[in-house]
Amino acid sequence: VVDQQRLKVQDLGEQGLLARLLPFCPAAGDDGAVVPIAAQHAMVVTSDVLVDGVHFSDRTTPPYAVGWRATAANLSDLAAMGATPIGMTVGLSLPGETQVDWVEELYRGMTACLAKHGGAIVGGDICRSAVVTVAITAFGEVMPERAIYRHTAKVGDAIVVTGVHGASRAGLELLLNPAAATGLSAGDREYLIAKHQFPQPRLDWVAELAGAVGMDSSDGLADAIVQICRASGVGAAIDRASLPMPDCFAGWLSAERAIEWTLYGGEDFELVVCLAMERAMEMIGKGGRIVGRITAGRSVVLVDGESQTELALSQSFQHF
Amino acid sequence: VVDQQRLKVQDLGEQGLLARLLPFCPAAGDDGAVVPIAAQHAMVVTSDVLVDGVHFSDRTTPPYAVGWRATAANLSDLAAMGATPIGMTVGLSLPGETQVDWVEELYRGMTACLAKHGGAIVGGDICRSAVVTVAITAFGEVMPERAIYRHTAKVGDAIVVTGVHGASRAGLELLLNPAAATGLSAGDREYLIAKHQFPQPRLDWVAELAGAVGMDSSDGLADAIVQICRASGVGAAIDRASLPMPDCFAGWLSAERAIEWTLYGGEDFELVVCLAMERAMEMIGKGGRIVGRITAGRSVVLVDGESQTELALSQSFQHF
Repeated sequence: VVDQQRLKVQDLGEQGLLARLLPFCPAAGDDGAVVPIAAQHAMVVTSDVLVDGVHFSDRTTPPYAVGWRATAANLSDLAAMGATPIGMTVGLSLPGETQVDWVEELYRGMTACLAKHGGAIVGGDICRSAVVTVAITAFGEVMPERAIYRHTAKVGDAIVVTGVHGASRAGLELLLNPAAATGLSAGDREYLIAKHQFPQPRLDWVAELAGAVGMDSSDGLADAIVQICRASGVGAAIDRASLPMPDCFAGWLSAERAIEWTLYGGEDFELVVCLAMERAMEMIGKGGRIVGRITAGRSVVLVDGESQTELALSQSFQHF
Repeated sequence: VVDQQRLKVQDLGEQGLLARLLPFCPAAGDDGAVVPIAAQHAMVVTSDVLVDGVHFSDRTTPPYAVGWRATAANLSDLAAMGATPIGMTVGLSLPGETQVDWVEELYRGMTACLAKHGGAIVGGDICRSAVVTVAITAFGEVMPERAIYRHTAKVGDAIVVTGVHGASRAGLELLLNPAAATGLSAGDREYLIAKHQFPQPRLDWVAELAGAVGMDSSDGLADAIVQICRASGVGAAIDRASLPMPDCFAGWLSAERAIEWTLYGGEDFELVVCLAMERAMEMIGKGGRIVGRITAGRSVVLVDGESQTELALSQSFQHF
């Protein structure tokens, strides 16, 4: 018997804690919350907290890239809800000995990402703390019938993804372990590192995907598919040969490593949506890729010819 | 000559750092940012970051009160912009060894304040950190012509305040130093502690004060008046006899201490507005108090019979 008074956050894990807090925040469950504002206008709100040493480090991420990535992650959540950006607030806690130059570079990275993808910094707060923490809340606008939710995928839908997956994880590896670049061209190395440091939120797909079912792949492609299936009460079959990995993985990585990073790498900030087959085919013409289909039942399997493997969920995003 | 590359946040202080970051966030300067949304609709956004050991501590503030105060501070910023609350997001960073009970109490306090004053938690994020940090972004709605800004106070305006000031500071003192209660009734002691732990944002005044000039007194009454005067390019004369202090200060505190806490105590979360005299008189009938008037020039003085003292700005809110 666990004494409730003594129960610690680390005993529950992130998902367990979120479940405990659900009664206080009934809107949770998508990449952002949809808040009706005026007739035919809804606002989407999304928040992220990044902590030095947990979500970024000077070893892999200069402050300009920390600012870019934090902003891109929030804009990606807006894209995943079908919204276009309005603005964001930045709550920054930092030690007094932080270099001012570091802080300015952080803001330069944030405003550069906003200048490219839309929105502006409209407010925030700065205060002293022992640990650098960047808390961003972004908000965007969506017409209610164009919002993208997770919970209405239907059996027979095609699963369509934008872009490639695993590139951000590969870029992180190259930053942490430069020797990993053996066998990779300099151009491919730079491409993968840029994918890690400067991800591009897929706001360019929002108009195409109005009213689709889906989310972004911030916690990995496998996680996105499993989350959509759980929310919709369905299963999925993913086709191993269709996994959207960077071309340079072939000949550089083992097949196992390539699939692991593509499915579980995370932080590619692409979109994963479920569409009726006819509409899915249109997306292929525009650069999307069909990676599988929604099935009856609850299991999410990777299909490789005759064999099927149940997808394991990565533990890497259990933050406690 | 200071090496810009080596300049630290603590060398600049909070105001200096904010000035450096102004180019990245042109909307700064009021309690919140006003963002146009649809015809006749604007959104007000405001953010606060609270850090364990800086803004709260288990010594003075149980988690329920931390949640209430953090929420009240943000709702007060909405009131200070003339807005009514829609919702807020909560970005929470905390060590794994934090008691789950502590976290739930925090959220209970937040939702209790929202239930009383309006709005709901519509999203957020939770992550691991060495330091408990609570980052709140609240948003509300205002018709553009009803927004309250700081920069248009006019010479001759009356300065009107809601409620009393200094009570929160007195409550904090009683929590830090129980012996300070000598000479105070048990009822007054409880009243002052409640003023510190459970401040009430003055959303009840928003309808009355539409289009006024002003802000809230989160950083103290003197700070609010000086900020309004700086933003408007005017001065002010404050009448010492009219300072809105709790009745129980008389006979308990020295006159100097009473005035110090009333002017500089902070965190009373009342509203300080400038209004033409006729409209100001109406506010008196509703419980407001005229504490002085806007003057030509730039100095903010405390007038006590024949003598005038220039107001010093408190240093207590220089967070670095």
